[in-house]
Amino acid sequence: MVNLKHSPKISDQDRTKQQIVVLRWGHRVHRDARLTSHVALTARALGCSGFILSDSEDGKLKETVEKITQNWGGDFFFEMGNSWKTTIKNWKSKDGIIVHLTAYGENIQISNVLNKIKELKNDILLLVGSQKVPKVFYTNEVSNFNVSIGNQPHSECSALAIFLDRFFEGKELSSSFRKAKIKIVPQKRGKKTLLT
Amino acid sequence: MVNLKHSPKISDQDRTKQQIVVLRWGHRVHRDARLTSHVALTARALGCSGFILSDSEDGKLKETVEKITQNWGGDFFFEMGNSWKTTIKNWKSKDGIIVHLTAYGENIQISNVLNKIKELKNDILLLVGSQKVPKVFYTNEVSNFNVSIGNQPHSECSALAIFLDRFFEGKELSSSFRKAKIKIVPQKRGKKTLLT
Repeated sequence: MVNLKHSPKISDQDRTKQQIVVLRWGHRVHRDARLTSHVALTARALGCSGFILSDSEDGKLKETVEKITQNWGGDFFFEMGNSWKTTIKNWKSKDGIIVHLTAYGENIQISNVLNKIKELKNDILLLVGSQKVPKVFYTNEVSNFNVSIGNQPHSECSALAIFLDRFFEGKELSSSFRKAKIKIVPQKRGKKTLLT
Repeated sequence: MVNLKHSPKISDQDRTKQQIVVLRWGHRVHRDARLTSHVALTARALGCSGFILSDSEDGKLKETVEKITQNWGGDFFFEMGNSWKTTIKNWKSKDGIIVHLTAYGENIQISNVLNKIKELKNDILLLVGSQKVPKVFYTNEVSNFNVSIGNQPHSECSALAIFLDRFFEGKELSSSFRKAKIKIVPQKRGKKTLLT
């Protein structure tokens, strides 16, 4: 049984807003290490509650992401090793919805797909593939929505970033992370950090 | 002498709007291959005119990006091998400005830095580092603006994507790419492409 700490219907102090967890599928430990770490850190920095690496284990990646969270704050969780099928089944059983990011889906710019997702108010498991995904991801067996960030080939990392920026309407970029040991003080020139 | 095909003041049919070219600094051929290709493809898909890999050569990367452009259309150029110093000097000599993307810069969400950049109307060379960048990048010897996409560590690929999405106000995601051999037809389910 999957233990989704922040899965739908589990109450915690942030349960008043629609939450997003990223599920990364198709990670290949050596080939995808850096890209998957960028995907996970993007999820954390841009307002997601957690990251699930499915069908794979990568201890070094987990360590990297958790170390960032320890130093830079927030409640971001990292899980790995469960199958996508089990994770999705569990998510759906708790009234969560599944959004699949793909270049083939409804274009976020020219359709009303984002509004439809937000109106539902259910928590979202955001599927982000690393390689060609199983065809079933496109069907309603798996996904409630297939969303494209433009219809050109580019990057799942970029697609995730834009989806989150639009979903949270930019607010995620100014949010503070509790229990942070280190903070950046933004400025025009140079690099300034605060240790707390 | 750098040959910037789309550099400032070189006239072409798209010269009516403020253009952006990405300069990738610090690329390590093996370690960064996939991330840099995602950065370049993000630049192409999200409205940039070209991509410059500075201080490094990577024939395989060039081939990957140019093949995407051949198949998916548009006028995106790829250059490599020149030093960042020469490229920046040349860019500035043609009234172009330099924007450095960094987690330490002015936060795009809580400052008016994006408006200031857009008001200038000069073409933009967007510096995207791969590793720790030289300190001089933060000074006015190099950059006109240091811009952060939030002040958390995440990904230069994500930072670039959000900068471009906000700069072009989303329009880049619905633009058509001329001379495309292949196009995606966005839809709710499945994968549909058109060969032209």
